Amino acid sequence: MSRVDGRERNDQLREIKITRNFTKYAEGSVLIEAGDTKVICNASVQDSVPYFLRGQGQGWLTAEYSMLPRATQDRNVREAAKGKLTGRTQEIKRLIGRALRSVVDLEKLGERTIWIDCDVIQADGGTRTASITGAFVAMVDSFAYMIDNNMIKELPLKDFVAAVSVGIVDDELLLDLCYKEDSNAHVDMNLVMTGKGDIIEVQGTGEENPFSKENMFKLIDIAEKGIKELIAHQRKALEDKVELFKGE
Amino acid sequence: MSRVDGRERNDQLREIKITRNFTKYAEGSVLIEAGDTKVICNASVQDSVPYFLRGQGQGWLTAEYSMLPRATQDRNVREAAKGKLTGRTQEIKRLIGRALRSVVDLEKLGERTIWIDCDVIQADGGTRTASITGAFVAMVDSFAYMIDNNMIKELPLKDFVAAVSVGIVDDELLLDLCYKEDSNAHVDMNLVMTGKGDIIEVQGTGEENPFSKENMFKLIDIAEKGIKELIAHQRKALEDKVELFKGE
Amino acid sequence: MSRVDGRERNDQLREIKITRNFTKYAEGSVLIEAGDTKVICNASVQDSVPYFLRGQGQGWLTAEYSMLPRATQDRNVREAAKGKLTGRTQEIKRLIGRALRSVVDLEKLGERTIWIDCDVIQADGGTRTASITGAFVAMVDSFAYMIDNNMIKELPLKDFVAAVSVGIVDDELLLDLCYKEDSNAHVDMNLVMTGKGDIIEVQGTGEENPFSKENMFKLIDIAEKGIKELIAHQRKALEDKVELFKGE
Amino acid sequence: MSRVDGRERNDQLREIKITRNFTKYAEGSVLIEAGDTKVICNASVQDSVPYFLRGQGQGWLTAEYSMLPRATQDRNVREAAKGKLTGRTQEIKRLIGRALRSVVDLEKLGERTIWIDCDVIQADGGTRTASITGAFVAMVDSFAYMIDNNMIKELPLKDFVAAVSVGIVDDELLLDLCYKEDSNAHVDMNLVMTGKGDIIEVQGTGEENPFSKENMFKLIDIAEKGIKELIAHQRKALEDKVELFKGE
Amino acid sequence: MSRVDGRERNDQLREIKITRNFTKYAEGSVLIEAGDTKVICNASVQDSVPYFLRGQGQGWLTAEYSMLPRATQDRNVREAAKGKLTGRTQEIKRLIGRALRSVVDLEKLGERTIWIDCDVIQADGGTRTASITGAFVAMVDSFAYMIDNNMIKELPLKDFVAAVSVGIVDDELLLDLCYKEDSNAHVDMNLVMTGKGDIIEVQGTGEENPFSKENMFKLIDIAEKGIKELIAHQRKALEDKVELFKGE
Amino acid sequence: MSRVDGRERNDQLREIKITRNFTKYAEGSVLIEAGDTKVICNASVQDSVPYFLRGQGQGWLTAEYSMLPRATQDRNVREAAKGKLTGRTQEIKRLIGRALRSVVDLEKLGERTIWIDCDVIQADGGTRTASITGAFVAMVDSFAYMIDNNMIKELPLKDFVAAVSVGIVDDELLLDLCYKEDSNAHVDMNLVMTGKGDIIEVQGTGEENPFSKENMFKLIDIAEKGIKELIAHQRKALEDKVELFKGE
Repeated sequence: MSRVDGRERNDQLREIKITRNFTKYAEGSVLIEAGDTKVICNASVQDSVPYFLRGQGQGWLTAEYSMLPRATQDRNVREAAKGKLTGRTQEIKRLIGRALRSVVDLEKLGERTIWIDCDVIQADGGTRTASITGAFVAMVDSFAYMIDNNMIKELPLKDFVAAVSVGIVDDELLLDLCYKEDSNAHVDMNLVMTGKGDIIEVQGTGEENPFSKENMFKLIDIAEKGIKELIAHQRKALEDKVELFKGE
Repeated sequence: MSRVDGRERNDQLREIKITRNFTKYAEGSVLIEAGDTKVICNASVQDSVPYFLRGQGQGWLTAEYSMLPRATQDRNVREAAKGKLTGRTQEIKRLIGRALRSVVDLEKLGERTIWIDCDVIQADGGTRTASITGAFVAMVDSFAYMIDNNMIKELPLKDFVAAVSVGIVDDELLLDLCYKEDSNAHVDMNLVMTGKGDIIEVQGTGEENPFSKENMFKLIDIAEKGIKELIAHQRKALEDKVELFKGE
Repeated sequence: MSRVDGRERNDQLREIKITRNFTKYAEGSVLIEAGDTKVICNASVQDSVPYFLRGQGQGWLTAEYSMLPRATQDRNVREAAKGKLTGRTQEIKRLIGRALRSVVDLEKLGERTIWIDCDVIQADGGTRTASITGAFVAMVDSFAYMIDNNMIKELPLKDFVAAVSVGIVDDELLLDLCYKEDSNAHVDMNLVMTGKGDIIEVQGTGEENPFSKENMFKLIDIAEKGIKELIAHQRKALEDKVELFKGE
Repeated sequence: MSRVDGRERNDQLREIKITRNFTKYAEGSVLIEAGDTKVICNASVQDSVPYFLRGQGQGWLTAEYSMLPRATQDRNVREAAKGKLTGRTQEIKRLIGRALRSVVDLEKLGERTIWIDCDVIQADGGTRTASITGAFVAMVDSFAYMIDNNMIKELPLKDFVAAVSVGIVDDELLLDLCYKEDSNAHVDMNLVMTGKGDIIEVQGTGEENPFSKENMFKLIDIAEKGIKELIAHQRKALEDKVELFKGE
Repeated sequence: MSRVDGRERNDQLREIKITRNFTKYAEGSVLIEAGDTKVICNASVQDSVPYFLRGQGQGWLTAEYSMLPRATQDRNVREAAKGKLTGRTQEIKRLIGRALRSVVDLEKLGERTIWIDCDVIQADGGTRTASITGAFVAMVDSFAYMIDNNMIKELPLKDFVAAVSVGIVDDELLLDLCYKEDSNAHVDMNLVMTGKGDIIEVQGTGEENPFSKENMFKLIDIAEKGIKELIAHQRKALEDKVELFKGE
Repeated sequence: MSRVDGRERNDQLREIKITRNFTKYAEGSVLIEAGDTKVICNASVQDSVPYFLRGQGQGWLTAEYSMLPRATQDRNVREAAKGKLTGRTQEIKRLIGRALRSVVDLEKLGERTIWIDCDVIQADGGTRTASITGAFVAMVDSFAYMIDNNMIKELPLKDFVAAVSVGIVDDELLLDLCYKEDSNAHVDMNLVMTGKGDIIEVQGTGEENPFSKENMFKLIDIAEKGIKELIAHQRKALEDKVELFKGE
């Protein structure tokens, strides 16, 4: 049986494309494409930390997330025009920040902040997980920049991290849902996982269709498979930085 | 081995106390106490629905969540004074809304909105899960009020719903973490489950300590045990309404 | 002639109940009940003062006031959701602050701020005056805490303070109006008075029915009688702290 | 003994000047000067009522109050730049609205709103009471405009209304305090009164110096004398409209 | 051919009246009247500079602009009530600030800020250009105040500056448009110019009727003529300060 | 003499690249590149008009403008995070809207709104003028979409429109300034012009260096030359739509 967007298998990722140095000013800049979902992930290095961390000799990483108004089928009102972030945006920016911080050794950063900006220019499902996967690569580039500029000596990194969505649509357990699948899903779950296969974050909801423990465990297994492939994509995209990972 | 707050077992809930009719105006009003965590859960019936649902003949349920400034060890700035909801508050109010809507038959409500207000007057960990568990009882009371006043004919309810937290502290897998445990937890997970044992929502994070799939599955099992006990508490608290549940 | 809520006399207070240590974290925590009006009054000690007082060696006290959305017959929209305080809330928080500051010796506090949080959980008229009366007791408890912890040596207190409402309903001059009386009142007045019988604040309005000087003076006399009784309630609630008041 | 601004008597008003038709667009436009306090009071007629009054066949009156940033000795930050009204502004705008509504027959207005805008261009104490006194005249002019334009048939007015401040400075009881007196006052009271001598609003505060009932009563007497003089000024300013007041 | 407001010539200014010392607290205070357009321009001296200039030994000048709600034919909602500045207000306040800064020698000011507040009390077209022309005079008075108080030694001024509007109405090229002309204009242009005849700012728009280069150049010539007359008015208003301009 | 970014002539545009159909959902979607300045211009068709135009049978066009936080050398705070638009953003969005509306026949649109979203992903000077030039092409594509879908019958277009910046740097008059030139410019001017060579908008400022009329006229001539080339680029980009322009 084939998927609505033409994929052949339920546990198949969409085509992944990771373009580094997408814009010229950011210390790390990545365009990640997962099928028709496209996100610009910029990593910026700032020479200070938030108030609550000053003087502690450690760094910080924080993320922001936004969609262009017409990234979607219908135009959304700009949050800047509304004057506040929606609850959804706040959830996603917090999720991205937690996911990336989980693999960063903040003490090795010094008193610096890495700002991760994920701006969705086209949305076809899975924008938050694509943001995490792409932002990881931009973050590594910003670390490489810091090494090149003698700000730090080695990668302040504990592991890789990537994320993917899984869900149940018409009793089928699917990996990496596109928007059409997502809007028909009974269960929608996002998994964030490290290169070693440990879970950083799991969020699953079956608001209209509660789901069994058995299905949950199966979904986790499918997501794990997808994340392994995504991390392989990240490794490949970063292969010119391979020497930096030696100490990892 | 005993817990930091004196509990004997890792899979033991704190003492649960559910007081109905806690305030006099709300159609449903519950004070839920889970150890030292205390939340007022009020359910209000409003004779209209949000704009996006008008004319569709169905109802809606929405939740809000807040803490008194001194519900916690240190005083928090009031969100009304800041002029906006924090990201944490928005996540929690959305979670409570999804959890309760998942067991309500919105079509049977008619064009009415149930407002769930969860106000934490004392916080010792697990305020969002206590809010869900207590709000369920307040919601049932508001439905009983609607039946008594001939607004609806039967309980617009598909199942019970309750929620609990689990986590890993010093390699111990614990049920229903109090604040001291929570702030030392490597892994923190919330589970929302129905009376039939299906999962509505799972949210787990190991920001500083990624965790294995095996531990995740064990935590789910422990949480499931806790939720069964919580639903038993809900049933007991509502035993004078037992005839309403016949059709359930 | 009897009152709408069953009281026998026009100059009769509702039943007053003052519960200390109502929540466990605040340095002073009181639940005050005046008939069906119920307010949680928490006093928090903070080790700093606002910007405009820094370096002057004196303290400050500020108050905030809020109602749970369903403290009233109809649900009110949360001010945190609206993103701003209503004019009514601002008036009341300023009134409570002025009333309490009038009896505190701010210089004896050192560079500390006392935060008074009055949260109405059930409203049946007179919430602002009950807030002042209850908050006074919470404030004294926070002072006792400061003495016990060697932050100050003696009560920084000049006098007791309490407040009550009076009004004219159908030509009757009434003390301590409940909501039903209040909503029918032609004249509505709040009086804040010290233990010595001096006036700190008087606010009276007859928007729809201007009133004579003679009636105003009579209302003041009735309010004075009520405040004396309220202060007796405060003294009784605080009788274990009686030795602290010696120097008063 | 003479006053700080050269007045001879404690119960003496400052010089009052009322200029009608001060600006050309408003249906009523008054510049009121009380000594160095100068307020532009504009009354605007709008052909609709707020949502809560629609379809009830009655009108509404609402007031706004603001100060130019440099109306005062030191420049104040604009509320439009801060993005919100201060608590003080909200109190004053509500007070002005209540004071004027108390003498208007809202049912005779039809479904119209009178907007009262009081903009202080120079502040030397007593801006809120000058606003009320001046706005009354602007309001009458807007009613005259409505009669001339066949919107209403007669003055929708029950009485005159004016306001004044009184206070205690160095044990002297003073009428109409200028800023220098006001900032040294132990007691500060504002009285709003009708032409018939009834009280609409009294607000008195002795935050730092509680005051006796006797002094309060004396202050009311002094204020009453001042208000009678202010109403004489209003009558004189409006003498070309004398025939309109016949039915009053 | 005569203009809609009775002026005889297309290149004729309205009657200009500049009243200095209009209010008593501001270091410079001017009421400028251009026909029926009336703007209060206050200049305030503040002993500090914005954050981005601290420690650089130079000063700053910033402007704010507002209209009274009933400065216009129809009442406008107050920006303070809306909680934000409109785009139009922001454009105008930035324009006024740039115009005045262009002739001020900020280094001679020392670390001080000049706040320019332009408050329109009556609007009949050309409020932004009248604000610039009037604010220049208020600014000079604030500099004179600083010299008198030994804060600076000489006028920190490079030149005069004034502004005027021009436009095309029914193929006529007009100087200094009143509101009725402005609302019928096909082209609307504002010019800010120095005493030496150099351009500081030009803003022209023909949204509904694009205009030729030739007409643009003619409009600039007409505006130049008007600005020369306005600067003559400024010189005359300031003639008692003539000795200050010697070094200019 | 050569330019800082390697261009040979002062009146030379940077390389222009216009990519249509850049994202897949918008009715018109263009990436415009002017040298290193890159802007996504999306045009969205909405089937309604703002409140003030309802029932008048005509359409509307409105624009929004934003920059990705790291479009620039240093990271900017997101306006959505600040909760309000800066004055600069408001000026630009109003400018873009006026520029495009000037060539659209709003009556032919029917009661529809065209939303123009200009999102700068990389900024090297001239972002507002590039936005106008690119948005024109996106807008035409959205009109073509409307024709294809039988919403309108012909292009509701009166002319082409494009915009460019000019300025004076070290006495050289330059066309199409890059960021490095712009930040050293004494004079900065933007011109919006139609295909027929008429001016829609001119904005020039010499805040720190007032400029002569003669230089202004020369700058206009240089800008006119640039705009003609930009319109040639637009024509070429749209050459598959050439038949639509027949009636133009």
